[in-house]
Amino acid sequence: MSSGSASAAKSTAIGNVLWQKQPKANAELFALTYGALVGELLRDLERSDAISSELDRMGHSMGIRSIEEFLAKIALSDTPIHVGNAFTETPETIRMALRMFFGINADCRWKENNANASAAAAGDGAAAAEASSGGGGGRSTYSLFFTENPLTLFVELPEDVSVEETLEYNQLLAGWCRGVLEMLQFDCTCKIQQSILQGDTINEISITLNQILQEGAGEDYQEE
Amino acid sequence: MSSGSASAAKSTAIGNVLWQKQPKANAELFALTYGALVGELLRDLERSDAISSELDRMGHSMGIRSIEEFLAKIALSDTPIHVGNAFTETPETIRMALRMFFGINADCRWKENNANASAAAAGDGAAAAEASSGGGGGRSTYSLFFTENPLTLFVELPEDVSVEETLEYNQLLAGWCRGVLEMLQFDCTCKIQQSILQGDTINEISITLNQILQEGAGEDYQEE
Repeated sequence: MSSGSASAAKSTAIGNVLWQKQPKANAELFALTYGALVGELLRDLERSDAISSELDRMGHSMGIRSIEEFLAKIALSDTPIHVGNAFTETPETIRMALRMFFGINADCRWKENNANASAAAAGDGAAAAEASSGGGGGRSTYSLFFTENPLTLFVELPEDVSVEETLEYNQLLAGWCRGVLEMLQFDCTCKIQQSILQGDTINEISITLNQILQEGAGEDYQEE
Repeated sequence: MSSGSASAAKSTAIGNVLWQKQPKANAELFALTYGALVGELLRDLERSDAISSELDRMGHSMGIRSIEEFLAKIALSDTPIHVGNAFTETPETIRMALRMFFGINADCRWKENNANASAAAAGDGAAAAEASSGGGGGRSTYSLFFTENPLTLFVELPEDVSVEETLEYNQLLAGWCRGVLEMLQFDCTCKIQQSILQGDTINEISITLNQILQEGAGEDYQEE
């Protein structure tokens, strides 16, 4: 457990440094612009599932772009930074990238639903290694938890309850995670599980591994 | 001329401090989100004049919000900052606010089309005061010039030439200036005159005073 915490602390520190170095825009204008985008989608598409799917698509393409930049910055970094290529190592990568691009400090928690995963969580290094060696055999779902959210500054959802209940305003973030993971060769399902905007006490995005993509499957994007 | 430069330099310095203090978002994500918004408007509205008018409307409401925050920050500032209430003093206010909200460093140049304005430009303090005392009698049009533009990072306009030629991608900024000036009691026409995205060497927004609004005309917004 302690090595996990140490690695999480290191990711946080690296994420902070990367965030500091990024060119900045005004947070309020960003939130207002995102709000205008969602409002425009509401006007255009009306159905909230279509809106969420469009936000997911936009987030996905931003995520692909972000992770390319992230990996380039990491490669050029003075201090060596390890970006693991097992699925169990993706939480640290995502946490660094979330901090770098959105200024979000996220915590990660694995969903423990089998013996391997429990053993790994209990600090059994061998079992953890075994679980992770399959790239997702033992641990295939985790959630990212965070409170601060640059998308929801000043946000009021429309009063139409049927839309409010189903519109995933944060879907851009879930799509973004999906794009990041796809570039790391993991085909994942990323879902908004909790949202402060909807009255929950925290924001939660769950990430479930569907399959490991072929080596080089993401190269199409890089050549674009 | 020297007092004008000194005041411009002071505005720049104040703008820098205000910009530093503002909460930040990632510049690339802001630009991508704005791009997604314009893309969505393109898909929804098709006609470029309708899109520009929608961007202008969004910018206007952001401008109203921005200047309220700007005035509040100024009021709470440790060092007294003079925000003049003559139209001839608005360039400095706009320059500070552009820097604070968009990180843009703009230069201002008055359009000299009468004797008063020429005298003012030549550094004749009395004439300048006289010209400005009418709030716009002598000088009623100026332009803001800038090169860096957070909206146009990574932008490619669509290949459809008819749209490309007329779509004012930067219209949000012109609308924003209009909103800012309206809150300062000046009804103005704000136009994109030059745009680097369209092949010009600089971005230019012209600002022409139409009329001075009634004292308190902007209070509706403040009470919202």
